[in-house]
Amino acid sequence: MTDADIDLARHLADAAAAAIRPFFRAPFEMETKADASPVTQADRAAEAAMRAILELERPDDGIVGEEYGTVRESAARQWVLDPIDGTRSFIAGRPIFGTLIALVEAGRPVIGVIDQLIGRERWIGAHGRPTTLNGRGVTTRRCAALANATLATTGPNYFGPGELARFEAVQRNAGGILWGGDCYNYGLLAAGHIDLVIESGLKLYDFAALVPVVEGAGGRMCDWQGQPLGAESDGHVVAAGDPGLIDAVLERLN
Amino acid sequence: MTDADIDLARHLADAAAAAIRPFFRAPFEMETKADASPVTQADRAAEAAMRAILELERPDDGIVGEEYGTVRESAARQWVLDPIDGTRSFIAGRPIFGTLIALVEAGRPVIGVIDQLIGRERWIGAHGRPTTLNGRGVTTRRCAALANATLATTGPNYFGPGELARFEAVQRNAGGILWGGDCYNYGLLAAGHIDLVIESGLKLYDFAALVPVVEGAGGRMCDWQGQPLGAESDGHVVAAGDPGLIDAVLERLN
Repeated sequence: MTDADIDLARHLADAAAAAIRPFFRAPFEMETKADASPVTQADRAAEAAMRAILELERPDDGIVGEEYGTVRESAARQWVLDPIDGTRSFIAGRPIFGTLIALVEAGRPVIGVIDQLIGRERWIGAHGRPTTLNGRGVTTRRCAALANATLATTGPNYFGPGELARFEAVQRNAGGILWGGDCYNYGLLAAGHIDLVIESGLKLYDFAALVPVVEGAGGRMCDWQGQPLGAESDGHVVAAGDPGLIDAVLERLN
Repeated sequence: MTDADIDLARHLADAAAAAIRPFFRAPFEMETKADASPVTQADRAAEAAMRAILELERPDDGIVGEEYGTVRESAARQWVLDPIDGTRSFIAGRPIFGTLIALVEAGRPVIGVIDQLIGRERWIGAHGRPTTLNGRGVTTRRCAALANATLATTGPNYFGPGELARFEAVQRNAGGILWGGDCYNYGLLAAGHIDLVIESGLKLYDFAALVPVVEGAGGRMCDWQGQPLGAESDGHVVAAGDPGLIDAVLERLN
């Protein structure tokens, strides 16, 4: 991972934003995918724009994208793209969806971008560097006790059978709960406004970009067993602004 | 209700926005109220600013405010104020909370403003007039079948015992569900991006402003029995962009 890779991630975010912007609260084609999630013309245009740039600029790197799949999957470096995380939010006209861009090296996310194009908010995280929001450093906030923690998750229906009860064991002991939000919750956590995000069923393209953003701001991300997140993870995700909260969360989840 | 009342509602929204803006994602004092909901310095500053204007401009009208209670409750005209609807969203830094301002005459909301100050989005509804978003007319969208309807609600924990099952009877038959959002969902419904919002436990200051906005855009609002919303309502709210959806919703709620 180099400075040029971070610049390229910014360039990808610019291209995705330009592709998506004309469709926000405007007519677009959409359909329902095999997994029952919606996809729009905007998702596809944005991913195509990013992939075209990557094919030119990093022809040897792999690409994993939500809409157009995987190429060069054995490459050591993988660009992982979710053109619109929170497609339902995008379709409904909420300005809290995001474009997610990650660089994964040897299975670990080392660069992450969360880009909210309507509010023009861009979080950039890179392994070993401080996370920025629109170029200014941000940090998570301290929160010593679960009872004081604000918890967020996209919705109860995203948990599988048995998982909702495990989530609720945390929720009951948390200070407050905020529903909806998709990737935007992790940006708010990185900026010190939310303490915990817990989700399940995420794909690599849903969470890879979040890890460098959250961890570069002083937080910690792991799966529901406390393991680091990477290409092999099963999609169960915890993000804590204060790493000291993780033990209390895992205890109640398990 | 006169044009001057609509101008005054705009003036109140400007004053509230000016009072709230400095506190967004910045430090503020907060506490938990008797009903366990949070209130911040921003809520109080915004309501105080609006009440000061009303005392000067409409000294004979009543005021019902979330934070500072009721004055002149027997007046025929009541200004109903929620300085920050979605206080939890505001505290978490989400740009989808809103200031709600209503004029209620003879128990019925006749003017409604939903103001989102970060995105600078202002919906204005007035009985018998077309609803506007930032000065441009908006309309709800047609949606003939519940199976195609996008449903939104702030969160499952806002429903009382037994109510969540009634809500889920609608949700199971709807096309999709979006969580979180508070008053912003009703603005998106008025602008044709969401089809249904169903909530319970709302106070007059939570829903009065929504009625003229939704109905002036072609939608319909009622309680869970199909009755019009007003000062005497019990806080169970349905909003439909397509009035033809109401029957299917009420059937499943009851």
